[in-house]
Amino acid sequence: MKPNFTLRLRVFNLNCWGIPYLSKHRADRVKRLGDFLNMESFDLALLEEVWSEQDFQYLRQKLLPTYPAAHYFRSGIIGSGLCVFSKHPIQEFTQHVFTLNGYPYMIHHCDWFCGKAVGLLVLHLSGLVLNAYVTHLHAEYNRQKDTYLAHRVAQAWELAQFIQAELMREEFLPHHLGSSSHTSKKADVVLLCGDLNLHPKDLGCRLLKEWTGLHDAYLETRDFKGSEEGCTMVPKNCYVKHQELGPFPLGIRIDYVLYKAVSGLYIFCKTFKTTTGHDPYSGPPFSDHEALMATLCVRHSPPQHNPSPTHGPAESSPLTSVLREAWAEVDQGMAQAHWWATMAGYAVGLGLLLLALLCALAAGGWIREAALLLWTPSVGLVLGAGAFYLFHVQEAKGLCRTRAELQHVLGRAREAQDLGPESQPALLLGQQERERAEEQ
Amino acid sequence: MKPNFTLRLRVFNLNCWGIPYLSKHRADRVKRLGDFLNMESFDLALLEEVWSEQDFQYLRQKLLPTYPAAHYFRSGIIGSGLCVFSKHPIQEFTQHVFTLNGYPYMIHHCDWFCGKAVGLLVLHLSGLVLNAYVTHLHAEYNRQKDTYLAHRVAQAWELAQFIQAELMREEFLPHHLGSSSHTSKKADVVLLCGDLNLHPKDLGCRLLKEWTGLHDAYLETRDFKGSEEGCTMVPKNCYVKHQELGPFPLGIRIDYVLYKAVSGLYIFCKTFKTTTGHDPYSGPPFSDHEALMATLCVRHSPPQHNPSPTHGPAESSPLTSVLREAWAEVDQGMAQAHWWATMAGYAVGLGLLLLALLCALAAGGWIREAALLLWTPSVGLVLGAGAFYLFHVQEAKGLCRTRAELQHVLGRAREAQDLGPESQPALLLGQQERERAEEQ
Repeated sequence: MKPNFTLRLRVFNLNCWGIPYLSKHRADRVKRLGDFLNMESFDLALLEEVWSEQDFQYLRQKLLPTYPAAHYFRSGIIGSGLCVFSKHPIQEFTQHVFTLNGYPYMIHHCDWFCGKAVGLLVLHLSGLVLNAYVTHLHAEYNRQKDTYLAHRVAQAWELAQFIQAELMREEFLPHHLGSSSHTSKKADVVLLCGDLNLHPKDLGCRLLKEWTGLHDAYLETRDFKGSEEGCTMVPKNCYVKHQELGPFPLGIRIDYVLYKAVSGLYIFCKTFKTTTGHDPYSGPPFSDHEALMATLCVRHSPPQHNPSPTHGPAESSPLTSVLREAWAEVDQGMAQAHWWATMAGYAVGLGLLLLALLCALAAGGWIREAALLLWTPSVGLVLGAGAFYLFHVQEAKGLCRTRAELQHVLGRAREAQDLGPESQPALLLGQQERERAEEQ
Repeated sequence: MKPNFTLRLRVFNLNCWGIPYLSKHRADRVKRLGDFLNMESFDLALLEEVWSEQDFQYLRQKLLPTYPAAHYFRSGIIGSGLCVFSKHPIQEFTQHVFTLNGYPYMIHHCDWFCGKAVGLLVLHLSGLVLNAYVTHLHAEYNRQKDTYLAHRVAQAWELAQFIQAELMREEFLPHHLGSSSHTSKKADVVLLCGDLNLHPKDLGCRLLKEWTGLHDAYLETRDFKGSEEGCTMVPKNCYVKHQELGPFPLGIRIDYVLYKAVSGLYIFCKTFKTTTGHDPYSGPPFSDHEALMATLCVRHSPPQHNPSPTHGPAESSPLTSVLREAWAEVDQGMAQAHWWATMAGYAVGLGLLLLALLCALAAGGWIREAALLLWTPSVGLVLGAGAFYLFHVQEAKGLCRTRAELQHVLGRAREAQDLGPESQPALLLGQQERERAEEQ
């Protein structure tokens, strides 16, 4: 990138509400979305809830001239629903499927069957490496009594960890191209779009932002046009049922465009738009969610422009406090998972007892028919409770892992604080150098 | 690290065969292993098949004075069985659970219930960043008719991708410590230990080595002591059943110590030892696998020492050919998964038909008792086949994802070859520079 050059990136994000047979006017909405994307010619269009691979293939064909590169992220039984269309070649892609994602027996909620995930694309644009993520977290069905809260916090943590880990990637063909002087490239710009199913002040959202340092396009831009308070589910949208919005009759903001850039670069959101319950031509909406459209600019950072607002040691407490909050939430989820596993264990025992009793009754010739009739539910109880037990044991293991990771980083944060606020900024920035200088 | 300094790293790896109730003399073996590890004081001890968390906690207590840092990687229902003990502080840890890992209905094989994974530790040693991985891939139960081959290839690919992706990590507290000039550090040294359940010439092993450029300590060392051909399951071991070795009566090599270093560093394996069917004091063995002990040395690379053998363009074909082979294997696995899903779909239909017939018979009063008796197996058929169907749909999605990733990198490899062998080394090494110079 030349010294005075600005990289302009036009990004589109939409949760498409593309459930086959269930979502209204799906075919028409997908068609109109394709027309709009073709006309607007964004750099990147990131979509969620494209549950039908046929819809993806339809869009792929339709968008081919404008967006030559595309990828559909497959996972779980139904699929992650995530896909991307890019005007620029995709250098690499990968995905991470969340360890915890609801319960298989909550069939009506369906999330478990989707294999919710985060997809990553690596693009090279004007000499910069862009890591673009698209994601969709577990839905919130009842805000007052949210049984999925621990799972969503764990997902937010895994998402944050995945972004941090993948921020610097070993480039393609490292070995193939010879020598171990790998063509390693760090991501210069990170972009995360998607439906987080988290309100801006929710624990998961704060954890994600605090841990990754990502900025919220809606909050940062000076040129915003769209729905009130940037809401992405609004009552004006004809596909939104009023009871879905619950205690937020004016709408909720759960879809995001987040970004950051590395040192030496300055990224800002020039314009940010949302649709407002209609499509951009005031026609029927594309989805029950509003579409997000952001124009991001990346420039070389002049010394006075720090690429992202600096957070000195004094501000270290928001991170520790959010980590602690997340730890407590995950810990509570773990206790809940253990409780369910224990209950399921008792149910298995009860079922086995019942089966033995029925066998004895049938063998003795007593109430033979009733015994035979009860045989099926008893076997069902044993198998069902057994599966339930195994599932919750696995859930507890997954939450335990998240808790251990949070505990570890909390411990390190505390160590950093113990060294005193003055030494903090230098703590890790200078760690390598100090270690290099150390006597063995 | 000072210019003439050598970092010496003593590493221990063992598949511990620690199945509660089933593995013989488990408590005694774990105790003796602890004593040995304490006495030898390795830098890192990486263990697999520590299935019982109690065993881990016992070892943690026992090893605390010598190995103050330890971690147990939790996943799946049973757990990954992976753990590590380190003489040096662990800076970070994370894990990746393999998407595909056998079949839940193969209960006697149990792998699915374990949640097989790869664990990562980041250590800082004498100013160097060490990424140490420990892993355990799906077991091979029948080499002639290996139903898990596609899964193991997919695991090897995910493992290789995880290593490459994590090779460069964003350091801890990136945001917390302020400014976006993240304290990013690339791993200087990569170490992978574990039971790959792959022979050295197996597709998965070649794929892993070709894609990551990892070197095999057994093949590279000049000072080897141990079992013939470095075998890690040998007939002399009293816990190894001869039928387990099948067509390899002299033993098999499936446990590995693999490593590489980045440019500017030179890593070599000074000594490599295996146990030989006994523990190191000629007592009963620690496990049914042999333990591996490697002394690795890391130095600054003089110009004539290329840290890993260079692979020029002429050698690019082994990678493309192994990628193609993996693609074909995964593709075949996908066809198989689709076939099973289709069969299961038919079985569901058949079960529903049977249920309807039984209901009609019972309602009509014909052979009432027989109808009632057949009710349970019919419901079982519908539910079982339904679960089987869903599982294989998910398997097909997972394999499809792996195939898409292999396809993408194969496409890129072909592009690189089309540009001619001369341009290849420069292709990616110089890519960023060229892009920077490009006109926008």
